[in-house]
Amino acid sequence: MKKGEATRRRVVAQTAGLLNTRGYRSTPVSEIMRVTGLRKGGIYRHFDSRASLTLEAFGYSVERMRDRFRRALEGRATATDALLALLDVFGEAARDEAFHGGCPIMNLAIESDDADPKLRGAARKAMTQLVGCFEQVIAQGMRHGEFPKADARARARVIVASLEGGVLLGNLYKDRAPMEAVLEHLARYVRNGLR
Amino acid sequence: MKKGEATRRRVVAQTAGLLNTRGYRSTPVSEIMRVTGLRKGGIYRHFDSRASLTLEAFGYSVERMRDRFRRALEGRATATDALLALLDVFGEAARDEAFHGGCPIMNLAIESDDADPKLRGAARKAMTQLVGCFEQVIAQGMRHGEFPKADARARARVIVASLEGGVLLGNLYKDRAPMEAVLEHLARYVRNGLR
Repeated sequence: MKKGEATRRRVVAQTAGLLNTRGYRSTPVSEIMRVTGLRKGGIYRHFDSRASLTLEAFGYSVERMRDRFRRALEGRATATDALLALLDVFGEAARDEAFHGGCPIMNLAIESDDADPKLRGAARKAMTQLVGCFEQVIAQGMRHGEFPKADARARARVIVASLEGGVLLGNLYKDRAPMEAVLEHLARYVRNGLR
Repeated sequence: MKKGEATRRRVVAQTAGLLNTRGYRSTPVSEIMRVTGLRKGGIYRHFDSRASLTLEAFGYSVERMRDRFRRALEGRATATDALLALLDVFGEAARDEAFHGGCPIMNLAIESDDADPKLRGAARKAMTQLVGCFEQVIAQGMRHGEFPKADARARARVIVASLEGGVLLGNLYKDRAPMEAVLEHLARYVRNGLR
């Protein structure tokens, strides 16, 4: 890997953590300079604009979450097991320093909402993939008779909404109890066949 | 009401709508000037600082939500009815232009989080009151034997987390379907005695 490419990757990773904690839009470039140790010219040598660095940093955070989901799904024999493993990812992320700024998708959704169409598009796409991940597993469970036939997308939305709300409350209070309450509720919901 | 006080109230109301849509921290003062029709000096004649206007605007939005909850709870004979009425408030708010920027508490929580302790304090306090509102009704239902005895706060957190997530998804996609899925799920949960 060339030195320029290594620097670029490091800047994306450092900026990802910073923006998820301090705000995707409201963090000043001076903060990015401080955290990455680069001057303004150095940052703009690697990225066309603040907006493109923001999008790359968000993409990096989303990709890290996606890796966790992929690993969680490996070798799960039933849809119930797969859903419980996906719930665990949220439980673990809540305990992980790297995500102590909360869910990147929620953060970008709130900050971009009604104010920045390009960032909102990125947040929507990532949220659609997250809901889609749950929906696929649920639909598979319905096809295999593990869950009664019903609206798989509506159920995926309920699960993702509850998890996102759990992240919100947990992060607001810096307390794991709200997420634990949500996870317990959802695990019962899953074990009860999403009824 | 004196003219100064009337202006003050108008500015708070207009700023409340603006900040909930465009961001509590990221909206520039120039936007507040544009929306209220006041010059910078006019704004700072009424408010000590941008921060104090932000807090008052947030307080105004929260108070409007609280009014809705109060009205919803009037004359409810059972805890089940009271909870279903509280859920309806979220369903109606999702259809109300005044709240098309999403939930003020969530918006301020995300924006203030890890970055502004004073604003985070305001978000926490409002969220605690929201969870407390549900918790009181649930605890009453448990005392009266309407729901089995269990952790009332955990159940209130589950409901509020799900609702907040529903607001997030609905607002991100400008689509009522996610909130409707959440409300249907929660109504079943309530009717099932919060089991």
